[in-house]
Amino acid sequence: MDYAVKAGFMWQSFEIYGGQAGFYDLGPLGVLLKNNIIELWREYFVKQHQDFVVEIETPIITPAVVFRASGHEENFTDYATECLQCHRIFRADHLVEEKLGINAEGLSAEELEELIRKHNIRCPVCGGPLSNVHKFLLLFQTYIGPYSPSNLAYLRPEAAQGMFINFKRVYDLMKRRLPFGIAQIGRVARNEISPRQGPVRLREFTIMEIEFFYDDTNPQCDILYERCSDERLNILRAEDRERGNDKPIQIRVAEAVEEKIIMSPWLAYWMCIAKRFVNALGVPDDKMYFEEKLAKERAHYSKQTFDQMVIVDKWGKLEVSGHAYRHTYDLERHIMFSKADLYAIRQLKEPKTVTKTIIEYDKNAILSIFGSKAPQVFKALAKLSQEDLAKILSQTNSDTVTINGIEVPRSVFRVRTVEEKIWVERFVPHVSEPSFGVERLMYVVLEYAYTEDEKGRVVMRFPRRLAPIKVGVTPLVDREPLESIARRIYNELKQHYYTIYLEGGSIGKKYAHADELGVPFVITVDYDTPQRNDVTVRDRDTKKQVRVPISDVIKVIDAGLSGTDITTLGYPVIEYREDKE
Amino acid sequence: MDYAVKAGFMWQSFEIYGGQAGFYDLGPLGVLLKNNIIELWREYFVKQHQDFVVEIETPIITPAVVFRASGHEENFTDYATECLQCHRIFRADHLVEEKLGINAEGLSAEELEELIRKHNIRCPVCGGPLSNVHKFLLLFQTYIGPYSPSNLAYLRPEAAQGMFINFKRVYDLMKRRLPFGIAQIGRVARNEISPRQGPVRLREFTIMEIEFFYDDTNPQCDILYERCSDERLNILRAEDRERGNDKPIQIRVAEAVEEKIIMSPWLAYWMCIAKRFVNALGVPDDKMYFEEKLAKERAHYSKQTFDQMVIVDKWGKLEVSGHAYRHTYDLERHIMFSKADLYAIRQLKEPKTVTKTIIEYDKNAILSIFGSKAPQVFKALAKLSQEDLAKILSQTNSDTVTINGIEVPRSVFRVRTVEEKIWVERFVPHVSEPSFGVERLMYVVLEYAYTEDEKGRVVMRFPRRLAPIKVGVTPLVDREPLESIARRIYNELKQHYYTIYLEGGSIGKKYAHADELGVPFVITVDYDTPQRNDVTVRDRDTKKQVRVPISDVIKVIDAGLSGTDITTLGYPVIEYREDKE
Repeated sequence: MDYAVKAGFMWQSFEIYGGQAGFYDLGPLGVLLKNNIIELWREYFVKQHQDFVVEIETPIITPAVVFRASGHEENFTDYATECLQCHRIFRADHLVEEKLGINAEGLSAEELEELIRKHNIRCPVCGGPLSNVHKFLLLFQTYIGPYSPSNLAYLRPEAAQGMFINFKRVYDLMKRRLPFGIAQIGRVARNEISPRQGPVRLREFTIMEIEFFYDDTNPQCDILYERCSDERLNILRAEDRERGNDKPIQIRVAEAVEEKIIMSPWLAYWMCIAKRFVNALGVPDDKMYFEEKLAKERAHYSKQTFDQMVIVDKWGKLEVSGHAYRHTYDLERHIMFSKADLYAIRQLKEPKTVTKTIIEYDKNAILSIFGSKAPQVFKALAKLSQEDLAKILSQTNSDTVTINGIEVPRSVFRVRTVEEKIWVERFVPHVSEPSFGVERLMYVVLEYAYTEDEKGRVVMRFPRRLAPIKVGVTPLVDREPLESIARRIYNELKQHYYTIYLEGGSIGKKYAHADELGVPFVITVDYDTPQRNDVTVRDRDTKKQVRVPISDVIKVIDAGLSGTDITTLGYPVIEYREDKE
Repeated sequence: MDYAVKAGFMWQSFEIYGGQAGFYDLGPLGVLLKNNIIELWREYFVKQHQDFVVEIETPIITPAVVFRASGHEENFTDYATECLQCHRIFRADHLVEEKLGINAEGLSAEELEELIRKHNIRCPVCGGPLSNVHKFLLLFQTYIGPYSPSNLAYLRPEAAQGMFINFKRVYDLMKRRLPFGIAQIGRVARNEISPRQGPVRLREFTIMEIEFFYDDTNPQCDILYERCSDERLNILRAEDRERGNDKPIQIRVAEAVEEKIIMSPWLAYWMCIAKRFVNALGVPDDKMYFEEKLAKERAHYSKQTFDQMVIVDKWGKLEVSGHAYRHTYDLERHIMFSKADLYAIRQLKEPKTVTKTIIEYDKNAILSIFGSKAPQVFKALAKLSQEDLAKILSQTNSDTVTINGIEVPRSVFRVRTVEEKIWVERFVPHVSEPSFGVERLMYVVLEYAYTEDEKGRVVMRFPRRLAPIKVGVTPLVDREPLESIARRIYNELKQHYYTIYLEGGSIGKKYAHADELGVPFVITVDYDTPQRNDVTVRDRDTKKQVRVPISDVIKVIDAGLSGTDITTLGYPVIEYREDKE
């Protein structure tokens, strides 16, 4: 973290006003790294699946009804306790965990309070007594327009709901074909209670999510077998955790699905892609596993959840993504609250016979009974659906029914039932969700890239695609004509890459500076360059250099950035002894 | 807009809950277009200036003190009036403008109220009487942590403040060299009163801003003369507007600076880049001008503002960017509110002689007067700066002064003045700001790309870099073996571009569909393909086709996307008569 702040990756927000816990700024290198991580995610999750995964963007500010429907208003809470002396607020479960060294996730308010009283847990800052444990809503609250209860809105804590409420629009754009996924990358906000873990527990951060919709009776998940079936995942199962076992099992993805260890094939598929994506961020298989959450630890919407954990020095393990089998929960809730049609249609293999009730009314009878008032009756009837009419008729046994305030004799209605063969039926799709927090991934990338060489100098071994600055250019010594040539090459490379011009100090110092920033390649203009029109290209990781004509530099850098070892391109390789510097 | 909704670029948010004015969702094509616009902006404003412009990212949720310091809490308001009958809220100036057809921007509450009473303006919805005109704060309000006045926060209405409060961090990262710019791209929120203009007046949108810091006495704006000096801008000056003239003058950028029409050279430079950027979005020079705001129309922080206007069908003209000369206002306010050092340092050409007052105290005298209490006095004195001491001594004429509650005889102090030569001085940098709203640019790109061909079919002539989908692939007829070959090419191209597979209907219908989505190139697999291993590549704009070996397709598409006319690449050109279809 010290390195990250010093090099300009990130620092706490609002520093000049004393700082604000749970908020981090990204500096120049931080923004470049973040954008590279986002692009890589897009590549793995969206672009490679562009036939059936599309990206949308929805607002952060969201009318309260959406999070009432989603269950967040009721369930997206933590238990808080306040120091009665200094009035600081704490997460009750975290206090209990810190004090007693137990896992307090999922305990009830009563259980937490009992533990606090029993063990006489007090304010960790001033030692004061603690208040009762109460629920604290983690949604940031605001008002759209003037202050008024009907204008209540929340800042979204996840991007997911914006995708659920747009299900029908995207379903139509996808020509009503399942399965498909909606992806979204954007800011979310969670009003965490006293967040203390720096950049990994933020009140505002960037999320990358997919809501993946499919027909549970026909998931069409062939891609799992085509692309992932032999991939092995490390999984720490809930049942093992309950038995006190914390060693993950290693299992083939296909097997995990067949043995119902992962309940949804699409959940398994995206876990497989998540594993590969996190590999590409620089984390090897043995530093990563999927932890299945216990029932009491799961969010209210989830039937099964796996958290993707990465081993890190600072916190032991860190959750970098969540994989939730949200089932039909969210769409069903929005259907209930909005009355909108968020169903999908499926063809049946065999037609189904259904019995349908048809209610008709005798127009002539109505005309003769109501006379000049008849058009009013027809108008009122026209507004009612068959379901509405059936409901009205079934509500009473009397001889007349009330239609829009008008008493209409039951005798004018004729009810008959017909049998119909149907070839399609509507249903609520199942949903699997992979969800990543970008800032945590940044932390992981920084920690896994961080190395120190034999002299104790920092070398940031970023995967090349993620390196914020791609190329350095420097003259061997800061003198003419080398400087002018180096500047010219720098100006050319800038058109293509984020490039740094290195100056000041010995060439060894310059290389060390480039290594510290994680620059994969440095071009050096040396004494031979003016005559020979070539330069050396140094590889950060092998420290090997190749001698390349200036006109080939971009070709070599492109090859290097896409993963080629630049010493294999046929240019003379120089064994330069940097330790002399 | 009908097209934009139908094709899946954008639609109103929260539709299933009745929609919410001022919020728009971006659909699949909308996200691709938006990201392409953002990347192009990054190219023009950041990447091409990467030596001295860096991008950072700061939170949306911001403690209230930041917007108190920035003046927004006091000034970022509109005048509202409420219907006393239906309780709808309206912008008072908009009501007056609509009713009276005058420009009401910048009128005071009293002036607006007088006009409403005089002309008996009533609620445009229900005809009810209107309330008094009052100020309405346009900042969305929330609380970080539990509800409490000290936790008050706002959602940022501009990204700028995140850059100002980070001035010192970035100044240090830039090795304390001016000029430099801090860029930021991110969401902002403005609690607009009853917004009605669809996607161009949004309550939440994406902003792209640069705060550019420079030394006013030495702006070092050579780049203006190197890159822009002959560029001509259309400028509608405030003084002309005041005289009722609404015809912009055309003037060379350098001249506009020399004649002080644009007060800051860096403001002028970024206006020139803004012009070129909006050209690249598809807007020609004669459809664009910069409108200088009148003093009463300017934001509270600005010494001079130009709005970049684009002529559009729907609203006549549309502001797509603002260029504000924010001067030293923001940094000075943050220095005042935070007491932080947000100064830059400049070397003086000639040393300056400054007179400095030095206040010393006689330690022995203090020891003998205070005895065992002396350490307490020393401690209190050590905490005071020279300025503090000077202030205390000057506040009274009595024989003793009070230092931290202790009465200390004036006689122990000795005040002397010295002359010092200084070679550096600190100063507050000047700031010029270009600021763009992405969603408005999307609207402009859509309107300028929209054309209808001779048959009335929509052809979206997106600049190639902006086209959401880059390539289409289709078999001439949906039959084997053409389909398999087309699928294979599609699967290959997907690795490189957002690509669409076109199926169903005649080839003419497929081309028309691709044109409607603005796809620049369509690859067709025809009857000759199986033998000859080549395909046709069709250009959306010229409708010309070239016959290209399958192995060259990516090379041709790359050339085409970077602006080359594909008929000039040496492949056979086919004059295909689409009107036969």
